[in-house]
Amino acid sequence: MAKRKIGVWLIGALGGISTTVVVGIAALRQKLVDEVGLVSGLPQFAKLGLLGWDEITVGGHEIRDTTYAAEAQQLHQKSGVFDGDMLRAVAPTLAEFEKNIRPGTLINVGSTIEKFAGDAAIKQRGERPAVALERISADLTEFQKQHNLDHVIVVNVASTEPPQPAELRDLTWPQLQKKLDADAVSPVPASSIYAVAAIQCGFSHVNFTPSVGTDLPALEAFARERNVLHVGRDGKTGETLMKSVLAPMFAARNLQVQSWVGHNIFGNMDGKVLDDPVNKANKVKSKDHLLTEILGYKPQTLVTIEYIESMGDWKTAWDHIHFRGFLNTKMILQFMWQGCDSLLAAPLVLDLIRFTDRSHRAGQGGVMRQLSSFFKSPMGDNVPPEFHEQFALLEQWADEVAG
Amino acid sequence: MAKRKIGVWLIGALGGISTTVVVGIAALRQKLVDEVGLVSGLPQFAKLGLLGWDEITVGGHEIRDTTYAAEAQQLHQKSGVFDGDMLRAVAPTLAEFEKNIRPGTLINVGSTIEKFAGDAAIKQRGERPAVALERISADLTEFQKQHNLDHVIVVNVASTEPPQPAELRDLTWPQLQKKLDADAVSPVPASSIYAVAAIQCGFSHVNFTPSVGTDLPALEAFARERNVLHVGRDGKTGETLMKSVLAPMFAARNLQVQSWVGHNIFGNMDGKVLDDPVNKANKVKSKDHLLTEILGYKPQTLVTIEYIESMGDWKTAWDHIHFRGFLNTKMILQFMWQGCDSLLAAPLVLDLIRFTDRSHRAGQGGVMRQLSSFFKSPMGDNVPPEFHEQFALLEQWADEVAG
Amino acid sequence: MAKRKIGVWLIGALGGISTTVVVGIAALRQKLVDEVGLVSGLPQFAKLGLLGWDEITVGGHEIRDTTYAAEAQQLHQKSGVFDGDMLRAVAPTLAEFEKNIRPGTLINVGSTIEKFAGDAAIKQRGERPAVALERISADLTEFQKQHNLDHVIVVNVASTEPPQPAELRDLTWPQLQKKLDADAVSPVPASSIYAVAAIQCGFSHVNFTPSVGTDLPALEAFARERNVLHVGRDGKTGETLMKSVLAPMFAARNLQVQSWVGHNIFGNMDGKVLDDPVNKANKVKSKDHLLTEILGYKPQTLVTIEYIESMGDWKTAWDHIHFRGFLNTKMILQFMWQGCDSLLAAPLVLDLIRFTDRSHRAGQGGVMRQLSSFFKSPMGDNVPPEFHEQFALLEQWADEVAG
Amino acid sequence: MAKRKIGVWLIGALGGISTTVVVGIAALRQKLVDEVGLVSGLPQFAKLGLLGWDEITVGGHEIRDTTYAAEAQQLHQKSGVFDGDMLRAVAPTLAEFEKNIRPGTLINVGSTIEKFAGDAAIKQRGERPAVALERISADLTEFQKQHNLDHVIVVNVASTEPPQPAELRDLTWPQLQKKLDADAVSPVPASSIYAVAAIQCGFSHVNFTPSVGTDLPALEAFARERNVLHVGRDGKTGETLMKSVLAPMFAARNLQVQSWVGHNIFGNMDGKVLDDPVNKANKVKSKDHLLTEILGYKPQTLVTIEYIESMGDWKTAWDHIHFRGFLNTKMILQFMWQGCDSLLAAPLVLDLIRFTDRSHRAGQGGVMRQLSSFFKSPMGDNVPPEFHEQFALLEQWADEVAG
Repeated sequence: MAKRKIGVWLIGALGGISTTVVVGIAALRQKLVDEVGLVSGLPQFAKLGLLGWDEITVGGHEIRDTTYAAEAQQLHQKSGVFDGDMLRAVAPTLAEFEKNIRPGTLINVGSTIEKFAGDAAIKQRGERPAVALERISADLTEFQKQHNLDHVIVVNVASTEPPQPAELRDLTWPQLQKKLDADAVSPVPASSIYAVAAIQCGFSHVNFTPSVGTDLPALEAFARERNVLHVGRDGKTGETLMKSVLAPMFAARNLQVQSWVGHNIFGNMDGKVLDDPVNKANKVKSKDHLLTEILGYKPQTLVTIEYIESMGDWKTAWDHIHFRGFLNTKMILQFMWQGCDSLLAAPLVLDLIRFTDRSHRAGQGGVMRQLSSFFKSPMGDNVPPEFHEQFALLEQWADEVAG
Repeated sequence: MAKRKIGVWLIGALGGISTTVVVGIAALRQKLVDEVGLVSGLPQFAKLGLLGWDEITVGGHEIRDTTYAAEAQQLHQKSGVFDGDMLRAVAPTLAEFEKNIRPGTLINVGSTIEKFAGDAAIKQRGERPAVALERISADLTEFQKQHNLDHVIVVNVASTEPPQPAELRDLTWPQLQKKLDADAVSPVPASSIYAVAAIQCGFSHVNFTPSVGTDLPALEAFARERNVLHVGRDGKTGETLMKSVLAPMFAARNLQVQSWVGHNIFGNMDGKVLDDPVNKANKVKSKDHLLTEILGYKPQTLVTIEYIESMGDWKTAWDHIHFRGFLNTKMILQFMWQGCDSLLAAPLVLDLIRFTDRSHRAGQGGVMRQLSSFFKSPMGDNVPPEFHEQFALLEQWADEVAG
Repeated sequence: MAKRKIGVWLIGALGGISTTVVVGIAALRQKLVDEVGLVSGLPQFAKLGLLGWDEITVGGHEIRDTTYAAEAQQLHQKSGVFDGDMLRAVAPTLAEFEKNIRPGTLINVGSTIEKFAGDAAIKQRGERPAVALERISADLTEFQKQHNLDHVIVVNVASTEPPQPAELRDLTWPQLQKKLDADAVSPVPASSIYAVAAIQCGFSHVNFTPSVGTDLPALEAFARERNVLHVGRDGKTGETLMKSVLAPMFAARNLQVQSWVGHNIFGNMDGKVLDDPVNKANKVKSKDHLLTEILGYKPQTLVTIEYIESMGDWKTAWDHIHFRGFLNTKMILQFMWQGCDSLLAAPLVLDLIRFTDRSHRAGQGGVMRQLSSFFKSPMGDNVPPEFHEQFALLEQWADEVAG
Repeated sequence: MAKRKIGVWLIGALGGISTTVVVGIAALRQKLVDEVGLVSGLPQFAKLGLLGWDEITVGGHEIRDTTYAAEAQQLHQKSGVFDGDMLRAVAPTLAEFEKNIRPGTLINVGSTIEKFAGDAAIKQRGERPAVALERISADLTEFQKQHNLDHVIVVNVASTEPPQPAELRDLTWPQLQKKLDADAVSPVPASSIYAVAAIQCGFSHVNFTPSVGTDLPALEAFARERNVLHVGRDGKTGETLMKSVLAPMFAARNLQVQSWVGHNIFGNMDGKVLDDPVNKANKVKSKDHLLTEILGYKPQTLVTIEYIESMGDWKTAWDHIHFRGFLNTKMILQFMWQGCDSLLAAPLVLDLIRFTDRSHRAGQGGVMRQLSSFFKSPMGDNVPPEFHEQFALLEQWADEVAG
């Protein structure tokens, strides 16, 4: 098969996840590492003929002033990840991808995220939504043209925005479009402006964050209209993954969960952003709803996410699950998850890119329900909340696509 | 529908699980408790019209000299389970069931279990296998006759026997039968003698322990011949349940489990028996195999079970799972399970009774593959090791039986 | 030695700690339990000839409408503590003590605590501070007279009040006295009104809570003037005890604590009160300061206390301690403390009563520095923050007093 | 003060601890790291004028064929410790020290340790004890002479030997000496042969392992005779340190420890040696005795140490402490210690060297009781088992020595 050329456009292009994504692509190209951690590397997906690592070109939008080398070094030093020799070997690829990074927009990202903005992004501050949209679309189009790409997949891995006005959900696509065209300010968040740009260009869109992105009736309609693939919302990397795996066990055994307390601590930049209660509200909501869906009743729940600097990229969760068994006997399950955030997220981003590309190649459009297992709050209709059921959707889709 | 009469014959009739089973039946009859902890109480099984609590009569074999009142009181005092008022309310039912208990056999139970034998059981010591078999069968038949029972389900909840000679697996049913008829000693363990008796009588057999029971080619053949329902082996109540739920997550995410260490401590009588390394070997084996089956490779594993007197019936497991993620990053999941052993096991025994009765009513025979989710090492062909797949078998069966 | 008669006057007389205190006294009198859990029961304090359990008479102030029987039953049912037979045996003593309970005051207790007020307390609502003080003093005096008591020890075990105005710390005793005499409102919290009453009567005062009590320069002066014994503040029962024991280890080994995160969950009435952020602020402050004192630098700390109803009286703490060792190596200690709050606090209250009585018998007055090991934020000058140093103060005092 | 020259002779010179010791010395010399993790770096010991890092020369005995560079690299790769840049910077010092390493003896080290022997050590296999002793002494003397050292401190950090014959404890020094002189075999273990050599040379001896070393009446007498400083036994780095800190808390609060279960897993070479039950017995014994000493009664205890390869140098302990509080209430403390073994041990070895040198400078001899806080089973008379009391001995000694 002729080599293909697929562009990956990362929103938050120099963050921890993005840095790990590009380090990963480069290391995989050079066969410095195996495919452990990649769902798309499982034997049951071999039949799909997924995208090769040398078929990917990376670019993106970023609001900070930094470099891949600096970010990778910081992760290495502070969190003890990445092999030193590997970092040296991948440096040229990182430098090459870095040329494709353009300044992001600060529209409606909230004051906490704004604080991280570098000169290039600050220069765009105050731009009208319509101007931002046009600029972003131009960046995307130029990226495709310059690298002669068959297709581009836009992936949002930027920090969590504050919750958006509820009214947005009531807008039709024409109404939302009008808001964007209005002269001064609009309630549309940055994540959705990027999403509109992607759909306009006919590019696939993956939202790995709790920010809104395409998760609006207006944008779902717009994507359908253009037959654009999209999916989200909020990558399921650790504690919530555990919840979607453990809660079905309690349900199947008729053990009544009385309370489920989850405390999360971590110290990366995402943590600093979530330290702002406004941004955190978005995240906690995304982590909390699925217990009720799986169990069929609402136990008392508590979810905290706290920024503890010394933790670096290591997200540690303590969950205390109090459940009632036979004859009113109260029992306890506790777990501690010690996972490295970027290293858990990055392979899932790579999986999403490969599966999205495959879906695109198969001529599909709309919400990719088959990718639900990757998300905390999967988009799409009638998505089961149980992890194993979500994963079965992926396997079924693979069977169908592979024929 | 006319009220039915089903006998439940417990091997190890006065142990912790059996005591909790009878307390449970009595409390459920009087509606002192709800059906939390009972799988058979889940809404999706309502359509099966399962056995009512007042349709069950309990009897059994036991080698110790004790009473339900004493055992229940000890669990209450030492492990803090059962409500005092509830115990008073169920006392008459316990006393009534107790009349149906007969002395068990000590043949091949091993020296550790023998130490617990009371006068009645000791009196039978040295009886020939054929005599024991006849005596046990007579007890079962008399139980049915005396209480005018529609059917009897024999459930093994006795302490774990030492591992049996491998040669047993090579015997056909006629060969094994001949061994039992031989004058002096035979290699057939007590658990299998009870099982033969059950099959002879046409009674269903459930093996909730790691002892052999019906899990021999010879007895599978015999059960098939008589169209008798049976299933086992070793109830899945805690740490292994967790393994069968969590291991599929690591597999689906392509996270490579490098080591899985599980340390279990508890202080009930079962613990004292397992403190004998010979008996423990049987148990550990039962807990350890499924990781390899689920993951497709063998991580380093360690399982210990230790008797710590102060724990009483509370089995606490600490599991430390070391896994390798993307770019060789090692991460850790730890969990602590604090479950009350008898209170976790007893409702599953009640579920097994109800589902077995329903299967019997439907005219089925042979190994009950649909009950795999209840066991650590489920019998039957091509049983999936993943908990959710095993549970799906139960739901499918329920759909079929309910029509 | 002639039998003595000591009165114990509990503020919050029907709360979980008080209920456990009276159950304990009664059970110890009848020798139904041993002295495990009582510091005063250690061999090294035998030489002090401490108060006997039959030498204590209990009374107190309470704002809720309830009974010892109901409270004890609730603890038994919801939290699985107390033996049923024991509860029946101690019932008469509980009923006897209950006669000595009088309505407490609602002055400055905060709106969350006020919600729990019963009819008797509500009837006093709006009383002027001076009136409340007089009423409380009369209750104390009458208690002593009626039971012919040698001495009375007032112990505050009521729920945590909101933080008090900082200005209180600037007042001299005459100034504070004037505030209390003022017609309408004063900033003096209920806990300090009770304390003033105790000092006026010449009765010892122990503050087992984070509320102010005698911890004001004005009241320290007043107590000194009257040579009254007093001590506080906030009983050290669980997580903070662990901190005062573990932090010295990190200090002695020069292991640099980078972050110390402590999450506490529990479900008793105290928890409901602390669910109000205003009241919680007082508590968290009390738990957080000592790390800096012991370590000599301030690591990042996080302390949460959350009300999780299902936990009942079982306070569970997860602490995650991130420390830096040799060559910048980051290591982790985590602990989970599962303690029953009232059962940990009550014996310490009994210890405080016995040691205070002994101090009083020895003719001492002022702040009881020797009791520092019992408190999270011990009063007194130059109190060491390390638990073992605090405990050494108690042993030294015992040596001196015993001669 | 004139610069001094002190030799450090490591038994097990290329193991994980030794490698970390030399990396540490080199990094401290170059001021690449601070003194965190070093007890001797605490402010209260500044007055002692302890040994400077550039005053130390390292040599030692080793039975394996390897290099510091290889060992350091393996720790870096497998366990994620040491900074890559730091390793490059310290390489010359490591190479320099490596020249001083001589082949160790295999006498009575046990078959598991023997398996690791390299060519140089194997060549000495079968040497008579007297010959080994002479060879070792010659190595020590030559080391001092070649480097013109003021004094030499011998430190045993080799893997744990199997337990030695009890008869050794009954021998006087002349009797033991005679055994060593005997032609063929003697029961004296390698660790004690090294110790005898050290004492003969008048060099101080520190035993950081559970092996015998100088911990024999005969060798204590010999050391006294020569006024040689020595101390041991078994460095207290993790779980046992926690025990010696936490057990006093339970004692002081009269909380009755019912069971204390400690499971340890780790994957370094020491772990491989301890995987041999014979060698493990020595270690477990060393970890288990102190609870009884501190508590004054014997709770049920369980200690396991298991080799789990993936853990590398990271020793993880799970301890489950079941304790009885007031009114028979059972409560639980669990902790998980995740410490890097070599990085915890190496700074203590450096501390022991500095304090031993200071003691030697002060003209002291015999067992260094003041260093008890560093050991699991400290030698010397009337050593308190509580960590804080042991640490107080060190502080008192420092006060005395500093004058």
